[in-house]
Amino acid sequence: MIKKVLKFGGTSVGSIKRIIHAAKIIKKEYDSDNKVIVVVSAMAGTTNNLIEHSKSISKKFNKRELDVLLTSGEQVTSALMAGALNDLGVKSKSWMNWQIPIITEGEHTNARIINMNIEKINNYISKGGVAVIPGFQGVSKNGEITSIGRGGSDATAVAIAKIFQTDTCEIYTDVDGVYSSDPNKIPLAKKIDKISYEEMLELSSLGAKVMQSSAVQSAMINDIPIQVKSTFTERKGTEIGGKENIDYNKAVTGVAYSKDDAKITLLGVEDKPGVAADIFEPLSNEQINVDMVIQNISSDGKKTDLTFTTKRQEVKNAVALIKSNKKIKYEKIHMNDKVSKISIVGAGMVATPGITYKMFRSLAEEKINILAISTSEIKISVIIDEDLTIDAVKILHKTFKLD
Amino acid sequence: MIKKVLKFGGTSVGSIKRIIHAAKIIKKEYDSDNKVIVVVSAMAGTTNNLIEHSKSISKKFNKRELDVLLTSGEQVTSALMAGALNDLGVKSKSWMNWQIPIITEGEHTNARIINMNIEKINNYISKGGVAVIPGFQGVSKNGEITSIGRGGSDATAVAIAKIFQTDTCEIYTDVDGVYSSDPNKIPLAKKIDKISYEEMLELSSLGAKVMQSSAVQSAMINDIPIQVKSTFTERKGTEIGGKENIDYNKAVTGVAYSKDDAKITLLGVEDKPGVAADIFEPLSNEQINVDMVIQNISSDGKKTDLTFTTKRQEVKNAVALIKSNKKIKYEKIHMNDKVSKISIVGAGMVATPGITYKMFRSLAEEKINILAISTSEIKISVIIDEDLTIDAVKILHKTFKLD
Repeated sequence: MIKKVLKFGGTSVGSIKRIIHAAKIIKKEYDSDNKVIVVVSAMAGTTNNLIEHSKSISKKFNKRELDVLLTSGEQVTSALMAGALNDLGVKSKSWMNWQIPIITEGEHTNARIINMNIEKINNYISKGGVAVIPGFQGVSKNGEITSIGRGGSDATAVAIAKIFQTDTCEIYTDVDGVYSSDPNKIPLAKKIDKISYEEMLELSSLGAKVMQSSAVQSAMINDIPIQVKSTFTERKGTEIGGKENIDYNKAVTGVAYSKDDAKITLLGVEDKPGVAADIFEPLSNEQINVDMVIQNISSDGKKTDLTFTTKRQEVKNAVALIKSNKKIKYEKIHMNDKVSKISIVGAGMVATPGITYKMFRSLAEEKINILAISTSEIKISVIIDEDLTIDAVKILHKTFKLD
Repeated sequence: MIKKVLKFGGTSVGSIKRIIHAAKIIKKEYDSDNKVIVVVSAMAGTTNNLIEHSKSISKKFNKRELDVLLTSGEQVTSALMAGALNDLGVKSKSWMNWQIPIITEGEHTNARIINMNIEKINNYISKGGVAVIPGFQGVSKNGEITSIGRGGSDATAVAIAKIFQTDTCEIYTDVDGVYSSDPNKIPLAKKIDKISYEEMLELSSLGAKVMQSSAVQSAMINDIPIQVKSTFTERKGTEIGGKENIDYNKAVTGVAYSKDDAKITLLGVEDKPGVAADIFEPLSNEQINVDMVIQNISSDGKKTDLTFTTKRQEVKNAVALIKSNKKIKYEKIHMNDKVSKISIVGAGMVATPGITYKMFRSLAEEKINILAISTSEIKISVIIDEDLTIDAVKILHKTFKLD
């Protein structure tokens, strides 16, 4: 008998049929006498619909009320799941966050779980009941409803695993694990059996939708092993864990890509202290997210070139802000809003020489021009022409033997 | 400056456009410096959808979880309404029932409001904020989510009017008041300016959908005047109140009718004490709702005939239960599942002789056969052939000069 958290994402509870299917997965654990806490997301589509509603009312919909609005989605799934479990003969009860309570701090729509009361639920599950908890939400110390950001149900599951000291934290989703790339777009993509937190974190933040980055980060900090599993097949999933999960035989674990990127280059920027801050301050004030930033050392010590990327829908606004910025001087501004970012990720990269060279060589052989490069210890990202995205991902799969 | 409860029903908040419209009505009160508490229903259709979901999971869906499920509907509307008010520049905040709290007692799906904390909300509205509260729900003393039955948002509004001692209780709905009959079906129907609690109660329980019976009853007990108003027109609505609202010039205030009725007659039933109880006990055990019951004094003191009505979808089950009931003896059983009940309601009826005669005469003149009759102090109900329903309602409108 072990204690488990099972988390079911939006598509796994996206219809009544799927809720009943997930309830049957839970029943197996119950029948094996495991102590089970279930965390559920809102039914797929619900949160987006509610956000649409709020936007039709106001472009700046009150954030406190947005939290009240959105958290209703997981309340619905929790009740349906507990009802479905009862119908299967499983003793079960839903617990709203304020009933536990799960305490958060931080601002509305972006709070963090800091604590939760474990007594009532531990009592209930030790008497053989299955507790169902809505993910993504909490209450502040003042008793206000809060939410912990999109995809926050993963963070709820990890927080419960930590505070309840469960033996496993299982994330049920619509894919059967973490893939070397998006299997819907790249048929060559292969499932990864084991992956380290660091690698998963890079893949998550680079657009792999399996798990939310902040939840991976929290799992890493608290050393909580995570199993990503499919709700729809019984295939073995992916284990996310510590260094023991690094496969040093593989220098590269996965290839991530993001579309909808845009690149802005400033040529002939004055090379003096504070110039980067002067460029990015107005963008930050307007909440424009800057992703990669590349600046070369200037050849003459006076002028340099600076490139950065941002999301496509924000690029016009960014260019306008730069043009109207009286604090900075530059010769020319270039903009390209049809680029994508391709990244190879792997914790074994550090120990394997020549990865960078191999990546650039294989792209060159396919005549894929690299527009910008940025690297970290376990990741190399390049910006390329958007039309060549899939080609690039495919060739990198071959090069690093991921297929 | 007065203190008001404004309640908006499901169709009044049935779309984003309508929520914004309702918010503008509230803004007028706010601009007039009135202290306002708003009670909202779930958006039209939402509660039915959620019930459908629960039924697809289980025919006997857990009632505790059903309350968790259904109360999400009003949570959504509350947040959207508070957001819409903020967008119009009205200081506003939603309060979930557990945040107030509104305390209920009684079983799940059928609880009653027994108390609520007024301090926080009184503070808020006296500082010029508009409080938005989801109707239909509460929390038990144990902190469980409860609901107070279909249409329960009216009951929430009345309870708030009582406990907060507001000056008015205004029910905004999709009709512009209480009509002498359903204006959509009976174009002759006329709006009633004033009506007594008792009359409204009879009309509500006879199927007029303007207000929920138990809310009217609670208003009557606590002597809370109610104004029924249209969300969509500015016409004067209907005032529901005490005896001063009885129009003694009119013997009949309204004509109600219900379809989907069925009639069962047992001929030659043994006329001895306890026989009626023996007949109805098994029906009650199976939760079959029996409406009218008519039994004549037997001519010979040994045998009698007994007629009762029930809802059409329950009649087959009722007949089967009677046939398998070994405790009772009768000669014949007749069933007619195509009948409807027509009722005339009026508090002035008691003081006006000949109402019963007039009703029967006018139906006879239209060749409408009366299958059963039942009367109370302020109501006369007859069972007739379903096909003649609208004809009967029309002729009664003419007879009692309601048009």
